[in-house]
Amino acid sequence: MTTPTTRADQKLPIQLTPGDRVGIVAGSGKLPINVAERLLAAGHTPFVALIEDEADRDSVLTSCEHEVLALENFADLVPVMRRHKVTHIVLAGGVDRRPNWRAIRPSFTLLRILPKAISALARGDDGLLRVLVRGLEDYGFRVVGAHEVVPDILAPEGLMTRTAPLKSDRRDLDAALEAALAIGRLDIGQGAVSIGGRVIALEGIEGTDCLLARVADMRDHGRLAGKRRGVLVKCSKPGQEKRTDLPTIGPKTIDGAYAAGLAGIGVEAGSSLVLDFGPMIERADELGIFVIGLPAGTHE
Amino acid sequence: MTTPTTRADQKLPIQLTPGDRVGIVAGSGKLPINVAERLLAAGHTPFVALIEDEADRDSVLTSCEHEVLALENFADLVPVMRRHKVTHIVLAGGVDRRPNWRAIRPSFTLLRILPKAISALARGDDGLLRVLVRGLEDYGFRVVGAHEVVPDILAPEGLMTRTAPLKSDRRDLDAALEAALAIGRLDIGQGAVSIGGRVIALEGIEGTDCLLARVADMRDHGRLAGKRRGVLVKCSKPGQEKRTDLPTIGPKTIDGAYAAGLAGIGVEAGSSLVLDFGPMIERADELGIFVIGLPAGTHE
Repeated sequence: MTTPTTRADQKLPIQLTPGDRVGIVAGSGKLPINVAERLLAAGHTPFVALIEDEADRDSVLTSCEHEVLALENFADLVPVMRRHKVTHIVLAGGVDRRPNWRAIRPSFTLLRILPKAISALARGDDGLLRVLVRGLEDYGFRVVGAHEVVPDILAPEGLMTRTAPLKSDRRDLDAALEAALAIGRLDIGQGAVSIGGRVIALEGIEGTDCLLARVADMRDHGRLAGKRRGVLVKCSKPGQEKRTDLPTIGPKTIDGAYAAGLAGIGVEAGSSLVLDFGPMIERADELGIFVIGLPAGTHE
Repeated sequence: MTTPTTRADQKLPIQLTPGDRVGIVAGSGKLPINVAERLLAAGHTPFVALIEDEADRDSVLTSCEHEVLALENFADLVPVMRRHKVTHIVLAGGVDRRPNWRAIRPSFTLLRILPKAISALARGDDGLLRVLVRGLEDYGFRVVGAHEVVPDILAPEGLMTRTAPLKSDRRDLDAALEAALAIGRLDIGQGAVSIGGRVIALEGIEGTDCLLARVADMRDHGRLAGKRRGVLVKCSKPGQEKRTDLPTIGPKTIDGAYAAGLAGIGVEAGSSLVLDFGPMIERADELGIFVIGLPAGTHE
């Protein structure tokens, strides 16, 4: 059995000095909450811009100094962040809604970003994120990844659970990794499920939870009859904008994998995020699901 | 607008001479029915082995000379085909069930095929099909593809419908084709859906109907908001055993694409099968869906 890498080994890549302040742009899900909790635990006082109808208001996010921003007023982000003396910005969490274009108030900031944003939207997600990041940097903010200010959120290499993969699971890990890398190269998705050594489902824009729900539904598919175990592998896209949208797993992923009858989960170490690390590993061991960090950079 | 290729241009690659008889091993779906109909129309008298619980008994299949075979007695296929003087075998249609291994009667034929079949099962579908084909050929049958005895079942190159793709659909056709080829190379699936120039869903073992149903469900996904049209592309896997399991479209695919809000379908010309060609094209034009045969061999 592999010894788990201790997560404390990793160094904080960004040293926040007095006068620095992290502004979290908080979308949906656990990631912004995890980031805020860890920054608070390290003695920092993050500012949070909650995206309306996305960020969880019943969380630590609203205990921090914060403002709520409608997606339509997103151009206000710059003056808001300035007012709160933010120096570093973390974009964290999902944004499932799309702005209601008719409700957008024109502003100078918006007009400046818009042409680039529109052409990026036409290219796909990663392009848009890059434009947002560059746009904010033009205003003098340093845009950093969640993992740069709270590095222990990154998946470590090696086995994280007491439950270990069987030898036969390795074949599934290899097959799913190969497929996840292939669809990542095409900027399609980050996840693949392999059962019995064969990739049976690929993630598009539906997301990992839906992918796992589909696998659960397919368990009685003829081609899966009699096949047990199987794995989910998630990895980043080659050249992915690492300050946003890294592959992420958390307790929900464990429950989804369990419901899908899978034996375990492989994530790319060092460039995948793990939400609620402690509770996630506890849940995984409770259910007998393994979680392993696969060597990073296999596609660079 | 492209002129449709006339399907009659294509030559019958296999000339059946007196004394030759085609045996159709009929699984589920329309393909075995299409093959039987076209052989009958050409004046042949095919023999049909209906796979129990898979082949459609309320069809032309039972008007031909036929026998019903349980999946568990599949080794009887050889004596049955011999008894009916079959020279050429076409494997057509789906087999979703898996045999109940305990119900299988051991036989000499079975014992001869079994070791190869088991190792092929471990490698994935295409491998298993190859073994079955080779196994039957060892017994002196010529195993041929549906398209070799009824070639007008192959998708022609060019536009098949009155409805034509818009210029913007070309970007979707290119993106989905690239993705379908990539997952085909990994022997995963044959289909991809692209909307707004971006691939949003990939086919695993769930099949095209489920893929399209998923896209219909995802239409209100944030990332698709405001995006219309989009295409499905299906193509064969490079090096695919072309005598079995070619990508197939039919009237059901048109209905699925329409329900998913797609503008059209692209299939690889010359190595995709079209079921119920006339009714399919009629249905597509009724619904305003285009169907286009993409140049074959882009991945060879």
